[in-house]
Amino acid sequence: MIEPILNTGERIDGLPSQNIHIIQNPDMFAYSLDAILLAHFADVKGKGRGLTVDLGAGTGAVGLFYAPKVAGLIKLVEIQPELAEMAKRSIAMNGLQDRVSVLQSDMKAIFDDIQPGSAETVLSNPPYFPLNNTTKTNQDEHYELARHELTIDLPGLAQVANKLLKNSGKFYMVHRPERLADIFSAFSARKLMIKRIQFVYGKSDREANMVLIEAIKAGRLGGVRIMPPIVAYTQTNEYTNQVQNILYGQSWV
Amino acid sequence: MIEPILNTGERIDGLPSQNIHIIQNPDMFAYSLDAILLAHFADVKGKGRGLTVDLGAGTGAVGLFYAPKVAGLIKLVEIQPELAEMAKRSIAMNGLQDRVSVLQSDMKAIFDDIQPGSAETVLSNPPYFPLNNTTKTNQDEHYELARHELTIDLPGLAQVANKLLKNSGKFYMVHRPERLADIFSAFSARKLMIKRIQFVYGKSDREANMVLIEAIKAGRLGGVRIMPPIVAYTQTNEYTNQVQNILYGQSWV
Repeated sequence: MIEPILNTGERIDGLPSQNIHIIQNPDMFAYSLDAILLAHFADVKGKGRGLTVDLGAGTGAVGLFYAPKVAGLIKLVEIQPELAEMAKRSIAMNGLQDRVSVLQSDMKAIFDDIQPGSAETVLSNPPYFPLNNTTKTNQDEHYELARHELTIDLPGLAQVANKLLKNSGKFYMVHRPERLADIFSAFSARKLMIKRIQFVYGKSDREANMVLIEAIKAGRLGGVRIMPPIVAYTQTNEYTNQVQNILYGQSWV
Repeated sequence: MIEPILNTGERIDGLPSQNIHIIQNPDMFAYSLDAILLAHFADVKGKGRGLTVDLGAGTGAVGLFYAPKVAGLIKLVEIQPELAEMAKRSIAMNGLQDRVSVLQSDMKAIFDDIQPGSAETVLSNPPYFPLNNTTKTNQDEHYELARHELTIDLPGLAQVANKLLKNSGKFYMVHRPERLADIFSAFSARKLMIKRIQFVYGKSDREANMVLIEAIKAGRLGGVRIMPPIVAYTQTNEYTNQVQNILYGQSWV
């Protein structure tokens, strides 16, 4: 790891299993288990030489955690300049600047920089909450943009992902289970066929609070697979062995 | 239990937690864990005085297992005369002939007998496999009709359920997870809003092999809840405590 210069309020968090470090500023935005599980869930096509795009990358956690799995280029798209700048420093800190780059842009405006139909894999940990659910919070603008569908909604995201992907390219997304009907509707309207779903349950006797989705562009209908459940915490509030392995175990490669 | 007269090949299976017995003929058709988990999953509206209809009832397992939870009438709709006749004998055997009855009919032709908009609850354990997936098997016609969408498909089933239900009435269905996209599509096209889903995993490290669905007629969009996972078997192939409780534990009422 190359020691970075940290600004006020920043700290470095790491994912031991992947040996990746991310500059975080909890006052602005911090990645969570969602980002890790999405990067873990996302498969690799062939030898992983194709282009990967992370839409709404924040500080780059998903794309950087995924980077050790592939050999090809990764582009992190993030609208917020402060988060995009932190992602750039994290890329350098991990020595990945030859493969991973940041595009600071609204994801709807990226097609001058990234060619339509060029991506093998698209990753996204998007804002979870629809605008009509917006409750006034004390959180600042950075969190608001990351949490609510202010700049992109599900149909918009599905459209951008679909335009980016090659035929048979894959879109991996993490979201909230309560949006499942919206997800099926937005994806199926845009030729993104959902092939694999994995639910994450906070505890074994709790409702799922996270859903991981794999969709394929222009894939054939039918055949959704529901992968084994991920249970995050034991009854005594420790990470389960299953999650500890993802965080601290062997590399996913 | 009133001792029934059994025909050749028939036996009696029971669900101890509900104290219900069902006449089975494994040569023709036998209910499985699916039927039990559906009856367990289905909620009761108010004091349970409303009408319940079981669509594609087979030998009546779902409706009879559900019967102790409610006080109202239950109609079992089954197209196959042999299975409908067995269901009738099971109703008598359980002393439920004042509340539970059988309508031997194609479910698309029931509206002379059951008024549209009259049901509080519709239950269904329908055929799981689309016709284009039909592989030639050695199974007889009774199994074929119960397993493949020969007489009713998902859109048709959703339409019958929707027509049967009052507004805000609930439709409970068990199906295969690989049909999830078809289920969302068929239901949302017919004003059936999916509100709760529960996945059943054969073992904790296996893909889900069953899905339980609750939908509400003319309900508002959004807010699907994914209930805690049901894991059927332990790693040593015994029922988990969770399933043993449903089968042998306290009554569900």
